[in-house]
Amino acid sequence: VPMFGNRTLLSWEVDREKQREWLRRAGLKTPRIFRDPERIDRLVIAKFPGAKGGKGYFLADSPETFREKVEEMIRRGHLRSEDVERIYLQEYILGVNAYFQYFHSILLGDVELLGMDKRYESAVDGIGRIPAAEQLRIGLNPTYTIVGNIPITLRESLLPEVLRMGDATVKVSKEISSPGIIGPFCLETIITDNLEIFAFEISTRIVAGSNVGIGTSPYAYLRYGEGMYMGRRIAREIRLGIESESLERIVS
Amino acid sequence: VPMFGNRTLLSWEVDREKQREWLRRAGLKTPRIFRDPERIDRLVIAKFPGAKGGKGYFLADSPETFREKVEEMIRRGHLRSEDVERIYLQEYILGVNAYFQYFHSILLGDVELLGMDKRYESAVDGIGRIPAAEQLRIGLNPTYTIVGNIPITLRESLLPEVLRMGDATVKVSKEISSPGIIGPFCLETIITDNLEIFAFEISTRIVAGSNVGIGTSPYAYLRYGEGMYMGRRIAREIRLGIESESLERIVS
Amino acid sequence: VPMFGNRTLLSWEVDREKQREWLRRAGLKTPRIFRDPERIDRLVIAKFPGAKGGKGYFLADSPETFREKVEEMIRRGHLRSEDVERIYLQEYILGVNAYFQYFHSILLGDVELLGMDKRYESAVDGIGRIPAAEQLRIGLNPTYTIVGNIPITLRESLLPEVLRMGDATVKVSKEISSPGIIGPFCLETIITDNLEIFAFEISTRIVAGSNVGIGTSPYAYLRYGEGMYMGRRIAREIRLGIESESLERIVS
Repeated sequence: VPMFGNRTLLSWEVDREKQREWLRRAGLKTPRIFRDPERIDRLVIAKFPGAKGGKGYFLADSPETFREKVEEMIRRGHLRSEDVERIYLQEYILGVNAYFQYFHSILLGDVELLGMDKRYESAVDGIGRIPAAEQLRIGLNPTYTIVGNIPITLRESLLPEVLRMGDATVKVSKEISSPGIIGPFCLETIITDNLEIFAFEISTRIVAGSNVGIGTSPYAYLRYGEGMYMGRRIAREIRLGIESESLERIVS
Repeated sequence: VPMFGNRTLLSWEVDREKQREWLRRAGLKTPRIFRDPERIDRLVIAKFPGAKGGKGYFLADSPETFREKVEEMIRRGHLRSEDVERIYLQEYILGVNAYFQYFHSILLGDVELLGMDKRYESAVDGIGRIPAAEQLRIGLNPTYTIVGNIPITLRESLLPEVLRMGDATVKVSKEISSPGIIGPFCLETIITDNLEIFAFEISTRIVAGSNVGIGTSPYAYLRYGEGMYMGRRIAREIRLGIESESLERIVS
Repeated sequence: VPMFGNRTLLSWEVDREKQREWLRRAGLKTPRIFRDPERIDRLVIAKFPGAKGGKGYFLADSPETFREKVEEMIRRGHLRSEDVERIYLQEYILGVNAYFQYFHSILLGDVELLGMDKRYESAVDGIGRIPAAEQLRIGLNPTYTIVGNIPITLRESLLPEVLRMGDATVKVSKEISSPGIIGPFCLETIITDNLEIFAFEISTRIVAGSNVGIGTSPYAYLRYGEGMYMGRRIAREIRLGIESESLERIVS
């Protein structure tokens, strides 16, 4: 069945290492990966093999705290000894998260920024409401289950960089799987207090955060005026494909 | 004076126990209530009798911390000894809050989801910005004064459950006070990292969070297209009542 | 070059003491300033001379913690000994931040509330996602780099006060620099759990937070219906100035 979008890129999206390669080839900043727990020299987020649904993480800031937490996780039955070596250790970038929704139009040859949001995650976005004293007593471990999205607008001086990031991501996508991304994609980032933008994930499809801007995203508005959003943008591209007899260019 | 809405349900809304009965009869998950402080075995939120405006709360995670905090509150004059027995102890559900605005149309026989937001509470939504070390030194106690609302969109896989919750709430409302809820109501919930939705309150009226979506809620848009929001939805129902000569069905 | 707006007020905006004088003359609540670190008796935020871009701050809650942190900052090279006396000490108001965007129309003689948002700051809005135990180990110092804005709606009972604050700010602006503010301005506030609104800054110009409401602010909607926002409001004022041959009244 022909599908709007580029199927091949899904294989890049599902593979953590290939994603990372893609982002780095596009020149995006990415969090450092620690292959060896003994080298942990800053805050890292440890991800269990097969962790999903926002669970199976812990934070550590040294080889010692890493070992302590691993032992605790094994004792509690959250982790098997044989999986310890496969724990994925990623630098924890201190900052705030921001998700950028783009649309790559093959037919118009342009990358459009259509929306922006931050994630709303349970329980991690709720723990800040618990005073530190109580947190210490109950021994919190953060979980990151995505529950929703919250609209944001961005500091204007960051927009050129965000647009460049979208362009570069599309450019590399053409190299790794011609004709590259077709339609919507999302870069998932952390912005530091130095205004550096670290990309930690790419989704080569419509993402839930797009809903934030249905009919109301300032970014879609600035580009198209009222009433534009990701779903409609896709529909419009398909119609343009039909009308210009180039539908085969935007399906795979 | 005839009023749009069902007056009788207000008596259910103002009574904590009746609210809880309603929510539970509708099959909604609710936080556990602890009648005996000696049984506290997890994080609970303790509410003073007559607490209002977001103040008069503390957190405890064991009978010991409960007693310590009670003594401290009495010493500081925030609580009277004779009121200790009337402190309301509710399980503190770890997660993030989400408020769903519904409209029950008696005339169309349907429950509509028109908006969604999270609360913005002072000072509790500000304490996460204070580093743990400072929090411990100044000895924070959380307060929950509602100051505003922030729009959210929800993870799509949760929407069927949210719609079911609205339907079930209306169904029970018909049993407890025919013809049930007329017009707007709001379910106030916490969503856990297991994607369980706990309802801790119901408001059988237009709530401030509805303002979040004036002219812009994705949910009202998906149902009605542009320009629908709670105030207009009420006006439309009243007009429909007049035009169909059934105004008496939607006033009480 | 004639410019829309009142240039003279910029000199009030850039000077911390003059800003404060303006806000206080308008009757707005402002955070207390501590001239002498020995008098610190509550949580304060200490700002280094020349601090900018959200960095160069620390929190202290007593003369002792102030001295400790100063020594640490000097040791780390973040602060020079000769600058210690020029550290600006401001009461840290416990609450949540809210930014109000107003438009003063000289031509219509009115102050309009057109939008509202909260700041999204890195890394301070991310630290609440780090459990207290990890925070204590890594020794966080908060930074306040503005990265974006998030739309909010306000508790309705606060709106009269917010409108009064806008009116009073304009009234004083006329006294300090006739004809007063021309066009957009923003009051940057903290709202406490007593619903007191403390203003800590004024921006006498269009601010980034205005973008939050492009085409979608409930407050602009309530005043103008669909499609109004700060940029368009400015354009409309200029056009009105041209049409009524009073352009010279709104430029400086």
